[in-house]
Amino acid sequence: MRAARYYGKEDIRIETDVAEGECGEGQVRVAPAFVGICGTDIHEFFQPTFAPLEPHPLTRETVPITIGHEFSGIVTEVGKGVVSVREGQHVAVQPTLYCGECAACRTNAENVCHKGGFVGLSGGGGGLSDSVVVAEISVLRLPDNVPLDVGALVEPLSVAWHAISAAPLTPDSTVLVLGGGPIGLAVVQCLVALKTKKIIMSEVSKSRQRFAREFGAHHVLDPKTYDLVAISKELSNGDGPDIVFDCAGVPASLATACQAVKTRGTVVNVAIWEKEVPFQPNMLVFREAHYTAVLGYQRKDFQAVIGHLADGSLRPEKMITSKIKLADLVESGIKALVNDKESHVKILVDMGEK
Amino acid sequence: MRAARYYGKEDIRIETDVAEGECGEGQVRVAPAFVGICGTDIHEFFQPTFAPLEPHPLTRETVPITIGHEFSGIVTEVGKGVVSVREGQHVAVQPTLYCGECAACRTNAENVCHKGGFVGLSGGGGGLSDSVVVAEISVLRLPDNVPLDVGALVEPLSVAWHAISAAPLTPDSTVLVLGGGPIGLAVVQCLVALKTKKIIMSEVSKSRQRFAREFGAHHVLDPKTYDLVAISKELSNGDGPDIVFDCAGVPASLATACQAVKTRGTVVNVAIWEKEVPFQPNMLVFREAHYTAVLGYQRKDFQAVIGHLADGSLRPEKMITSKIKLADLVESGIKALVNDKESHVKILVDMGEK
Ligand SMILES: NC(=O)c1ccc[n+]([C@@H]2O[C@H](COP(=O)([O-])OP(=O)(O)OC[C@H]3O[C@@H](n4cnc5c(N)ncnc54)[C@H](O)[C@@H]3O)[C@@H](O)[C@H]2O)c1
Ligand SMILES: NC(=O)c1ccc[n+]([C@@H]2O[C@H](COP(=O)([O-])OP(=O)(O)OC[C@H]3O[C@@H](n4cnc5c(N)ncnc54)[C@H](O)[C@@H]3O)[C@@H](O)[C@H]2O)c1
Ligand SMILES: [Zn+2]
Ligand SMILES: [Zn+2]
Ligand SMILES: [Zn+2]
Ligand SMILES: [Zn+2]
Repeated sequence: MRAARYYGKEDIRIETDVAEGECGEGQVRVAPAFVGICGTDIHEFFQPTFAPLEPHPLTRETVPITIGHEFSGIVTEVGKGVVSVREGQHVAVQPTLYCGECAACRTNAENVCHKGGFVGLSGGGGGLSDSVVVAEISVLRLPDNVPLDVGALVEPLSVAWHAISAAPLTPDSTVLVLGGGPIGLAVVQCLVALKTKKIIMSEVSKSRQRFAREFGAHHVLDPKTYDLVAISKELSNGDGPDIVFDCAGVPASLATACQAVKTRGTVVNVAIWEKEVPFQPNMLVFREAHYTAVLGYQRKDFQAVIGHLADGSLRPEKMITSKIKLADLVESGIKALVNDKESHVKILVDMGEK
Repeated sequence: MRAARYYGKEDIRIETDVAEGECGEGQVRVAPAFVGICGTDIHEFFQPTFAPLEPHPLTRETVPITIGHEFSGIVTEVGKGVVSVREGQHVAVQPTLYCGECAACRTNAENVCHKGGFVGLSGGGGGLSDSVVVAEISVLRLPDNVPLDVGALVEPLSVAWHAISAAPLTPDSTVLVLGGGPIGLAVVQCLVALKTKKIIMSEVSKSRQRFAREFGAHHVLDPKTYDLVAISKELSNGDGPDIVFDCAGVPASLATACQAVKTRGTVVNVAIWEKEVPFQPNMLVFREAHYTAVLGYQRKDFQAVIGHLADGSLRPEKMITSKIKLADLVESGIKALVNDKESHVKILVDMGEK
């Protein structure tokens, strides 16, 4: 079968003779339909981080591995004992891999499993192939009114959903979102789906500001022009937003988040950080504010997102800014995102286009 | 009357002709009995931070001001309408000053009032004087079995109590306390009063380690000798302490706190920070941990501490390492703490010693 294989830094090869995995007991074979490319893929392209250079504790694989962790597809085979899906059904795949035994897993925090990983990043196959075998628990049915391309957006939307679940959101909350990349825009959409009254987005790129407006942010501000701390306080009766999401992950967003948030409010850090940054904890002390961090998602987040896609309260179609063929993954996918990130939100690989 | 007056950097004068304030409606006059000296007083001595160099928004005072914010005393006069205390009663004074109107006050977070301050730091008189007039709400009765010297410890114990209330503590919690100064030792005592099963203290000073043991910490470790992250994980079944209190406020304690805390555990920062420090938020991301910060205390914290003093579950007498006269405040109080901080926990000024 075809598969995009990651060999190491700047070395992704589209191969055509990769062996298919076995579909064992409790497993499901999926033929990927659409696969999103995300910042993590780009990061891996330039600098292996998740990619197992030694055998991964769960998948036992080392590079080369098949990539692609944001995907929808069609069930083509079910292993013995599988009851929740059957051949021909449309599904989204939750790529989380976890051990089930560590202290994190034992407290239902399998998304931060000590040995954890992701299908498509840690071995265990990936979406950018003609066939991938995953555990039944990783597979979620897509309702008939959710098309397969939108199904590939369930993953980034679930990152956002999970992040929002970590905050004490109510419809009356005032929320500041820092960074309008795919994740920040997904947060905005989830907030809109939850009928949040006031959503303020801070983003430097003009085209991403436009997306934020289209997706329903109520105030979209350029942090180069506006004092986000002052304005977001003004927009929330003087004490600051109830919740701030940091989806930018730069020193300026950390400071803005901690200075803007209201007394006893919550900063949710969604970003992954490249390095240490300067931090003055007093920013939180003098307002007794909370800073919390999230990683990945859980099955319940996928379920919630699919529910909102089905009832129309999430309409993320416009996130898809381009569809490409597997053969063009590096040139029209990864390099397009590197060279012109701002005009894109999500590039999907259409696995049906040969 | 006598009063210790703060004029500015390294300029505290013990004066004998300071005018007494009026005891108006809803106010209580207290004759201070014992007054604790704390790190904040020392910090102010060298660098005015709280001291109002411009009129304080609540007290309208500027330096010179009367100092002393940790004190017990005897009621000598009650203003019109005061019902909760009467002349002759022993009391502790909660020094928090707040506006009652700002967004913080409106949400019952008057301890982080936007205009807030402290009796003895922001004007409004102070404990280091023969008489101080405070609002009725600031005064809490000391039960007969709580002596006045112990009454002066209610304030630092309430800082600790308030900090602990910010964490999801249960008796089964494993707790790591970083820093065994007066505040860290107060946290240990409050944890013991709440019957916490496992309390780990990290402290560099030998004499403070000894205090930590005496006050009931179960494991007392020197971070220069031990890898606190590794050991505290071992002592808590591999996943780390449920709660970490940072009462040290140095770059090393921030990193230890965030690296040690368990999956979805809570770091409570009690420290006040002098400057920015390096921080890698991923420490929290990969375990979805919470970082929260506290400031001061509320009346309910004072009440809880006094209750535990009365029932004997808090026995902080040994915190008092020296009692001095008002005349000796600078030499035997402030300078003693600067030069030999480690052999002291609390130095009290005994206002009855003339
Ligand atoms: N926690 C998780 O599980 C998870 C999952 C996926 C991605 N992430 C992380 O989330 C973050 C966002 O992901 P993304 O794919 O949207 O990234 P991205 O780089 O596409 O988006 C970041 C956006 O922030 C904007 N920005 C930069 N500086 C800013 C500032 N000072 N103020 C406001 N905006 C600013 C940029 O213009 C950009 O549009 C990344 O750090 C990524 O690693 C986390
Ligand atoms: N949040 C509040 O309302 C409040 C109130 C009072 C004090 N404080 C702050 O709390 C902190 C503690 O107050 P304190 O009076 O106990 O201060 P302190 O300076 O007496 O105690 C700090 C202790 O930390 C120890 N220490 C230093 N580096 C360490 C490390 N790497 N690991 C472990 N221990 C280390 C020191 O030896 C010292 O004993 C200070 O930052 C103070 O400003 C906050
Ligand atoms: Zn991704
Ligand atoms: Zn696990
Ligand atoms: Zn103090
Ligand atoms: Zn106020």
